[in-house]
Amino acid sequence: MADQREKVIIIGGGFAGLACAQGLANNPRYSVTLVDRTNHHLFQPLLYQVATASLAAPDIARSIRQILAKADNVRVLMEEITEIDPQARRVVSATGHDYPYDYLVLAAGARTGYFGHHEWEPHTMGLKTLVEAQNIRRRVLANLENAEIDDNDSDVDRLMTVAIVGGGPTGVELAGAFADLAQRSLKSNYRHIDTSRLRIVLIEAGDRLLAAYDPSQSEYARKRLEKIGVEVHTGAPVSSVEEGKVTFGPARTTLEAASIIWAAGVAASPLTACLGVPLDRGGRVTPEPDLSVPGQPRIFVAGDVVRMSKENGEPVPNVAPAAMQMGSHIARNLRKGDRKPFRYFDKGMMAIIGKNHAVVRVGWLKINGYFAWLTWLFVHIAFLVGFRNKLAVVIGWAWAYLVNNPEARIIVNPPGMVNPPGMAGANAGGEARANRQAAPDENATP
Amino acid sequence: MADQREKVIIIGGGFAGLACAQGLANNPRYSVTLVDRTNHHLFQPLLYQVATASLAAPDIARSIRQILAKADNVRVLMEEITEIDPQARRVVSATGHDYPYDYLVLAAGARTGYFGHHEWEPHTMGLKTLVEAQNIRRRVLANLENAEIDDNDSDVDRLMTVAIVGGGPTGVELAGAFADLAQRSLKSNYRHIDTSRLRIVLIEAGDRLLAAYDPSQSEYARKRLEKIGVEVHTGAPVSSVEEGKVTFGPARTTLEAASIIWAAGVAASPLTACLGVPLDRGGRVTPEPDLSVPGQPRIFVAGDVVRMSKENGEPVPNVAPAAMQMGSHIARNLRKGDRKPFRYFDKGMMAIIGKNHAVVRVGWLKINGYFAWLTWLFVHIAFLVGFRNKLAVVIGWAWAYLVNNPEARIIVNPPGMVNPPGMAGANAGGEARANRQAAPDENATP
Repeated sequence: MADQREKVIIIGGGFAGLACAQGLANNPRYSVTLVDRTNHHLFQPLLYQVATASLAAPDIARSIRQILAKADNVRVLMEEITEIDPQARRVVSATGHDYPYDYLVLAAGARTGYFGHHEWEPHTMGLKTLVEAQNIRRRVLANLENAEIDDNDSDVDRLMTVAIVGGGPTGVELAGAFADLAQRSLKSNYRHIDTSRLRIVLIEAGDRLLAAYDPSQSEYARKRLEKIGVEVHTGAPVSSVEEGKVTFGPARTTLEAASIIWAAGVAASPLTACLGVPLDRGGRVTPEPDLSVPGQPRIFVAGDVVRMSKENGEPVPNVAPAAMQMGSHIARNLRKGDRKPFRYFDKGMMAIIGKNHAVVRVGWLKINGYFAWLTWLFVHIAFLVGFRNKLAVVIGWAWAYLVNNPEARIIVNPPGMVNPPGMAGANAGGEARANRQAAPDENATP
Repeated sequence: MADQREKVIIIGGGFAGLACAQGLANNPRYSVTLVDRTNHHLFQPLLYQVATASLAAPDIARSIRQILAKADNVRVLMEEITEIDPQARRVVSATGHDYPYDYLVLAAGARTGYFGHHEWEPHTMGLKTLVEAQNIRRRVLANLENAEIDDNDSDVDRLMTVAIVGGGPTGVELAGAFADLAQRSLKSNYRHIDTSRLRIVLIEAGDRLLAAYDPSQSEYARKRLEKIGVEVHTGAPVSSVEEGKVTFGPARTTLEAASIIWAAGVAASPLTACLGVPLDRGGRVTPEPDLSVPGQPRIFVAGDVVRMSKENGEPVPNVAPAAMQMGSHIARNLRKGDRKPFRYFDKGMMAIIGKNHAVVRVGWLKINGYFAWLTWLFVHIAFLVGFRNKLAVVIGWAWAYLVNNPEARIIVNPPGMVNPPGMAGANAGGEARANRQAAPDENATP
């Protein structure tokens, strides 16, 4: 007997795709296939902590299969979808497999965007995936190691400079966490260099940090960051990036920095281009109120590929709660067989600014400082519910907080991949070193 | 005023080198430099748990600098030493730096050894470093993912076969842990393949597993492994390894296996060749009773580069407690300025065989089974004292034990390094897939 169930394909196992799959779990009407390029769901709001050596990768990632193990009608495939064919109602993968659908949910997320300047990509490090986070950690720590054995002052200055392009939440959180790492955690670890001299430069094109927040909060963030030693430049668009160099601002200042992190923009998954509808500058789709694609009632979009507005005209932010709400909403409409419009419930936004300080904005409510930081902590712990290892994460955090010692301060050097392609140039000496692996550890089962 | 202290260089931050540095910490007579290729000390006895997805890399690794932060007379350098010049009393690094010494402690450990068959290396995965452990995890998990989307039965069989060469503690522990993973943890995760059919083949050249243990314990280990589904072949030397194929035993059986793990031998650091003394087949030095190199009283050896015998003629095993004792002993002699001979205090050996079972041998005392497993657990927890994150590790373990869910079941795919060089051949399709990275996760600070 043929399977009479309708086929739902969900592309992407992030917050949106996973919420949708969970909403359809064990529903007898649908046979669901969730496809992701990786095997894990990532708790992206804490990704900057992997980059700054506070958390290990498995702390914030979990096997998608495991999360959906009890959803008997859901199969999970680790595949990269490269093409959507809305006419034939099927998607095609990089391995040449071909999957038909009755309904498609495109929740393929976003990647780092360069506003057309793709030539900058090889010289910078993005922060959207675990690999990218580990790459930032590896490079910043390896640069300190290389500075420790380097006698040339200008080399040391370059190795000890971290440029962060983009003053949104990611840039602000990274800058604060690196400042904490340098000022507190690494203190007394080195003999030759002084890590408190690690230069962290935050470069923002717009006239203030955290543009989505209240201007008073932007000012608060700037003051906090400056207090812990971060150099903040606003109104400073980047005009060029070369290997180890970034040029920015009206005066075209050139900064030599061995680590350049690009947190300035995102671009929606290129799969949106298969849909045959107009996209915005970031590659996002503006859907119908029920999140379906205009003219394609069998295709829905959710998460970072979506551009839509709230009733008051403000954009729905591309944040985790919005993505989860969209995924659940699509599942709800599929379950009920109707087309109820999506309404975003604003749970607020928050950004942490180094230890003990944060900004929170929920509608008209603004909170800054220690209480905001506690709120941030509480919300993130609550969010981690469902993540198996939340207890370990919380204990790791609490411990690191007490002793100023992030736990994940190790450089794991896969051979030949310390740097993104193109990074080898200016740092060739350093990279040859960073490329070493394989500690001469003792073998042993004691 | 010139530094009047004598210079001690320690090569290697494993158990031996670290114990030596700790023994000399804040001693006014010595200025100590510890050099390691990596920035971390590795708790190697638990490395197989990183390979089998039970622990994250940072759980068993810790920044060497951090461990020695309070030892003001010790500097730590991340450098690869490539040459020792005993005449000039200096060592040279890969970056061209040159470090003079008054005393040298060579504790550079061992790497995977192939008994002269270096041509097998590209087709197998070793397990001596974090990178290698992560590589094993990535490959075994990626092969399961690829089997899930593959319709060709013989491909699926090959993808679902793990060959482990070497029936010592590492091979036995890996085989048991993979069996647990397949039988318990991954159950109900896949829809197309049945992970309980994962074929784990353990191949040992000698006539029994765990040759260093009592024959009754070897037999016990074999029976336990067979009970949990591992195929054990003893008296089966490997005669050839090609991509995805291993040939072994008197009948030259060829097994197709997408994952081939080499746990059959170790070779001491090649630096021992600089010492100008005879080496054994494994590249190890037989030192004077005080652990100095014959004819080189200013050079000491410790850990896996050492071959020596106990008073009863039995070899001192290359295990963590022996390495630590040697490192401490050298530091003691340097502190006291004497040449007391080293005596190994046997703390016993143990190997875990899947969940709930282990073998322990301390002198004449042999324990097998559940009580041995509890002993194993207790000893490893005790050993982890000093590791900042021991609590998180223990909680992670305890949780995984209760729910059969190892926490680290994620595939982090650095671009272009899924496999050691040469592995791309037979698995090209699968590897192209495994090479995908970057989950379409939602961005977001909620």
